[in-house]
Amino acid sequence: MSQLNIMDSEVDIVVGALHSDLTSFMNEWKPIFSQYHLIIVKDPELKEDLIIPDGFDLDVYSQQDIDRIVGASNSIKFSGYSCRYFGYLMSRKKYIISIDDDCVPAKDDKGLLVQFVAQHISNLSTPATPFFFNTLYDPFRKGADFVRGYPFSLRSGVACSLSCGLWLNLADYDAPTQALKPSLRNTRYVDAVLTIPAGAMLPVSGINIAFDREVVGPALCPALRLAGEGKFRWETMEDIWCGLCVKVTCDHLKLGVKSGLPYVWRNERGSAVESLKKEWEGVKLMEEVVPFFQTLRLPEAAVTAEACFLEIAKAVKEKLGRSNQMFARAADAMVEWVEIWKNAGLGPLPVDN
Amino acid sequence: MSQLNIMDSEVDIVVGALHSDLTSFMNEWKPIFSQYHLIIVKDPELKEDLIIPDGFDLDVYSQQDIDRIVGASNSIKFSGYSCRYFGYLMSRKKYIISIDDDCVPAKDDKGLLVQFVAQHISNLSTPATPFFFNTLYDPFRKGADFVRGYPFSLRSGVACSLSCGLWLNLADYDAPTQALKPSLRNTRYVDAVLTIPAGAMLPVSGINIAFDREVVGPALCPALRLAGEGKFRWETMEDIWCGLCVKVTCDHLKLGVKSGLPYVWRNERGSAVESLKKEWEGVKLMEEVVPFFQTLRLPEAAVTAEACFLEIAKAVKEKLGRSNQMFARAADAMVEWVEIWKNAGLGPLPVDN
Repeated sequence: MSQLNIMDSEVDIVVGALHSDLTSFMNEWKPIFSQYHLIIVKDPELKEDLIIPDGFDLDVYSQQDIDRIVGASNSIKFSGYSCRYFGYLMSRKKYIISIDDDCVPAKDDKGLLVQFVAQHISNLSTPATPFFFNTLYDPFRKGADFVRGYPFSLRSGVACSLSCGLWLNLADYDAPTQALKPSLRNTRYVDAVLTIPAGAMLPVSGINIAFDREVVGPALCPALRLAGEGKFRWETMEDIWCGLCVKVTCDHLKLGVKSGLPYVWRNERGSAVESLKKEWEGVKLMEEVVPFFQTLRLPEAAVTAEACFLEIAKAVKEKLGRSNQMFARAADAMVEWVEIWKNAGLGPLPVDN
Repeated sequence: MSQLNIMDSEVDIVVGALHSDLTSFMNEWKPIFSQYHLIIVKDPELKEDLIIPDGFDLDVYSQQDIDRIVGASNSIKFSGYSCRYFGYLMSRKKYIISIDDDCVPAKDDKGLLVQFVAQHISNLSTPATPFFFNTLYDPFRKGADFVRGYPFSLRSGVACSLSCGLWLNLADYDAPTQALKPSLRNTRYVDAVLTIPAGAMLPVSGINIAFDREVVGPALCPALRLAGEGKFRWETMEDIWCGLCVKVTCDHLKLGVKSGLPYVWRNERGSAVESLKKEWEGVKLMEEVVPFFQTLRLPEAAVTAEACFLEIAKAVKEKLGRSNQMFARAADAMVEWVEIWKNAGLGPLPVDN
């Protein structure tokens, strides 16, 4: 238990509040959240006061904190889903777990409550194996190991910096998919965690992730903002962009990214058909974005997440920025973020005025 | 059903018989095997006659067939687990499913019999997605799709050429792992199939695989034979080598490799401790073999599996063959195999003398 407690004190759970009444969300999560420190960031565009039940250890941040600590940024907007990134900046813990406010705890295939935090921390605190695929998935899980043929020299693995959880019920599809298959629900609980191989790219969904803030924190920022960004997940790309930056950074620094458990249960929201005209913008961007990240190679001299992130920003500006202003703005936001991180994301927390 | 029947006639199930009495093996598989044509190849080192129950559509091959069709090969030995490759040569079907004779049908997590052949054929006949990872696994499976951020231009996927199934109960660990953890059993049924990303290498186990014979058949041959190769899986490396050759070939030809379902139930056999002194040889080889395959790039001009395989053989000879005779022999076997495949693996079956 003492081991668990040490871990507990190293975790911040960050929630971006896009809804004012968090009562049912918080109460559903109470059995899990009550052991941890929470950071709740109110979407600056949300007019109503937040309603948060008692019984939690939490800090709440809102527009005035953002203004005070970041000031008026030219390129970074903390509105909508991006408000959570302000929480990343305010955390001083090793690990951050970030979850959307339309998710509730899931049950596993045996009907037991998913150990949401414990699973993310297990993913982050056991090695990742990006340099050779283990067909029985996570070799560090109880009851598993490396299979025949797995090189012994690769079995110690590398540190894991990002853990991507999944979703039951409403999955993280884009608006066209959701509109085409309105009744599509994810009901399959896949009892596995795997390391995404080095060099392979994936679409990281920000709905349910955890990361090692000390190591890759500077590489998670709300850089890519769609002109028509909205309040539904399928109207955002900030997390997908962010995930590609982190994956390229991890590949370069020989760090791991895992995907799979834990699941959350995601509730229904909104009409995908309504979002279709906005979403096509994000869908089209990926055709340029993915080949860019797949072929991006960082210089040897970049040995920290900050340095990698600045190199990515430079390449974005040079290679993508010409064709689309949105990418040029993303590059500016990334550079600005590294400055903000140095000033506000490290050291003691800025005191209230 | 007619669709299923067309598929049925395109499948050969190949079994390398390392045990003379196949009665219980065949009877356990009867509900599944009875719909398909079987090719059974008797291990040339097996002295006793095979005992095979009635009620199956099968061809049995043994030493004299190998001698007649292949002749005395300098570099390829069809003994032990390698006997199955003679079956690959004798097949004229599009798909081959290959299974070890110490496996029986598994049940899924709901207690239902695994649809062993149907699952392999589904893996091979639906597209693979090696160029971007889909976090909800196989997007072509019922109830699944591509997640937000997955580029639309990559959603049609590519043809899948190799399907690697898994094992419940006794997993495919190497002798050291099995000896260190003698009671380790795989009890986790992971309900997923995924495409191994392009560029990532994996240890392909020959226990339970299926492949598109027309496309990658020439790249599956028993090339790497350990000096101390034995009759337990952990005393062999032929399949791991073969899998690396096929993966490099598929990556080059833009074809897919999947891993996951279907599972088989693998029975206990042998003492790992006894095998330890043999197995270390295979374990040590992987330290050289994996970096070789990870960095191997094939010339643009290689546009068939045969051509890729010959290029791999050339590189093996040049880069690995100097340090170890075993690799030089493997390269010779690969070149000889392509010749054998042209003469005996294509066209009408050679008639009996």
